[in-house]
Amino acid sequence: MKKIFLLLSMLTSGAVSALEALPMVPPIPADNPMSAAKIELGKQLYFDPRLSIDGTVSCNSCHNVMATGTDSRPTSVGINGQRGGRNAPIVWNAAFLTAQFWDGRAATLEDQAKGPPLNPIEMGMPSEQAVVDRLNSISGYKSQFENVFGQVSYDNMAKAIAAFERTLITPNSPFDLHIKGDKSAMSAKAIEGMKVFQNVGCSGCHSGVNFAGPQLAMGEGFYQKFPMNDSKYTAKYDFKADKGRYEVTKDKGDMHMWRVPTLRNVAVSAPYFHNGSVNTLSEAVRVMGETQLGATLDDGQVEKIVAFLEALTGEFPVLTMPRLPDTSTTSLVGTVK
Amino acid sequence: MKKIFLLLSMLTSGAVSALEALPMVPPIPADNPMSAAKIELGKQLYFDPRLSIDGTVSCNSCHNVMATGTDSRPTSVGINGQRGGRNAPIVWNAAFLTAQFWDGRAATLEDQAKGPPLNPIEMGMPSEQAVVDRLNSISGYKSQFENVFGQVSYDNMAKAIAAFERTLITPNSPFDLHIKGDKSAMSAKAIEGMKVFQNVGCSGCHSGVNFAGPQLAMGEGFYQKFPMNDSKYTAKYDFKADKGRYEVTKDKGDMHMWRVPTLRNVAVSAPYFHNGSVNTLSEAVRVMGETQLGATLDDGQVEKIVAFLEALTGEFPVLTMPRLPDTSTTSLVGTVK
Repeated sequence: MKKIFLLLSMLTSGAVSALEALPMVPPIPADNPMSAAKIELGKQLYFDPRLSIDGTVSCNSCHNVMATGTDSRPTSVGINGQRGGRNAPIVWNAAFLTAQFWDGRAATLEDQAKGPPLNPIEMGMPSEQAVVDRLNSISGYKSQFENVFGQVSYDNMAKAIAAFERTLITPNSPFDLHIKGDKSAMSAKAIEGMKVFQNVGCSGCHSGVNFAGPQLAMGEGFYQKFPMNDSKYTAKYDFKADKGRYEVTKDKGDMHMWRVPTLRNVAVSAPYFHNGSVNTLSEAVRVMGETQLGATLDDGQVEKIVAFLEALTGEFPVLTMPRLPDTSTTSLVGTVK
Repeated sequence: MKKIFLLLSMLTSGAVSALEALPMVPPIPADNPMSAAKIELGKQLYFDPRLSIDGTVSCNSCHNVMATGTDSRPTSVGINGQRGGRNAPIVWNAAFLTAQFWDGRAATLEDQAKGPPLNPIEMGMPSEQAVVDRLNSISGYKSQFENVFGQVSYDNMAKAIAAFERTLITPNSPFDLHIKGDKSAMSAKAIEGMKVFQNVGCSGCHSGVNFAGPQLAMGEGFYQKFPMNDSKYTAKYDFKADKGRYEVTKDKGDMHMWRVPTLRNVAVSAPYFHNGSVNTLSEAVRVMGETQLGATLDDGQVEKIVAFLEALTGEFPVLTMPRLPDTSTTSLVGTVK
């Protein structure tokens, strides 16, 4: 009920939501404080394909931080060329989301990080213990876990990865600079687009620092039905084949409900929607107008909104590459048939 | 004839080869001078999975520079989970080799870089033109190629990747420090091992700055027959299934001939041999004694040689991550079934 009330209040207040700049630091959970050693360990784990059964898939394979935090494909490719069912969400700024995955089934980045290693389509490890055993077999990991956490555990692996992910922030988009007072940062068209974005109601849901809804308590997801209205797009892009959050809760009220995704860096993270079925941002905007707002946006409105969304592309910080601990003869060598 | 003469002269001079430190700069070909912009472009290409047909495999997938320059598996995994036939060579210090691939079929790093994108097991692009078309469709690449080379071409792609690879040098191994005068850099056992390495004849072939043979002209590979002598290991590790350089030349004199691989960083790049069949360095040393030198090394000799080989692990420099140019709607999005 609380969520529905919140949704309604957002929708009715709709057009006037304040737009906010991105903070440099996301919420940090009390039980996983940041440290340089933990972040460095998390970075190694994030880039390490040895978290997958055959050593071919790392977190970065699908959420590529050398690119825009995703993999530029409709749905991702896991071990043995298997295709996943949903578009890989952008990892940049994910730390600001209060629920993870398209269906919000993980409350935190820590919870999220525990999913893919055991997913048979993604990284295919048979059990948490198998992951722990492999990490323990790599002496460079064992010693770092002991230093940071006391021991290797699956939860500690997730904590380290989450700590690294909390450093993945893209500040200083033209929009952020604009909000902070640099009135030359956004083009005139982008500024017009910002007004259209607010006036037609996009900001009813795409509000908050991450354009993914209001800042709720961690674990409290901000969901919306998609598609809200059926239109020619529903069949064209097969939007209803996936039941969304219903698949998690089996609650009919969650049928086709989805966590509202961030719009930050959206211009560089095609393709769009949970099934990655739409290739261009202008088409995605048209779809959203029709399905969510019941409005057929004209070409001028679409063009302006796209210009605004392009102004949400932030600065991707330069990262140093991690150095992955050496493989021992039991960590991967010889295990691949 | 020239090669055979050289081999014989190496083998007879054998034990007394001088050992040399690794230079900081490898040979640079006159037709591919280094520049910061070219190296940066090459780094992006090296890490970009869009060089593979389905966007899953980059150069770095198999020659992982965040690790020891290889993938810690017997043979590599390409697109669609396909397995290659040979162990991925270490990319670190490959710039010092005068022939590339296990069979020396590429004369230079440039030639080498043109292989994997078109290999149906590795990256699976259908043609050079398909690679060029994809690069041209990514505006961030098109502009960089125009800036560095004038235009996108398959050869220019290879030149950029080779330029990046020429920066992948691991200096300052304990052995290098020792050679430069730091007599505390190597352990006493490693120093003993160095003597055994020379005395039993390993350095007959594993000589030169890269422990991969004498510095020949670029394109002039330094080859050896492996296994030279049959032993219990030939069948155990199936060493003769692959005919080596014969597969390239169809010359009977090249049957089971292989380019002598570097020993730098060998301690951290298991598994060993062209088929990755041997998991431990001590076993690899035993095999080499038996098959190449006709000598059954005792445990003490093996242990000392291993200690010496461990002293060949260099310093892996900290690299910054490249930022890959954004995917356009024609470069990959929607192309993956």
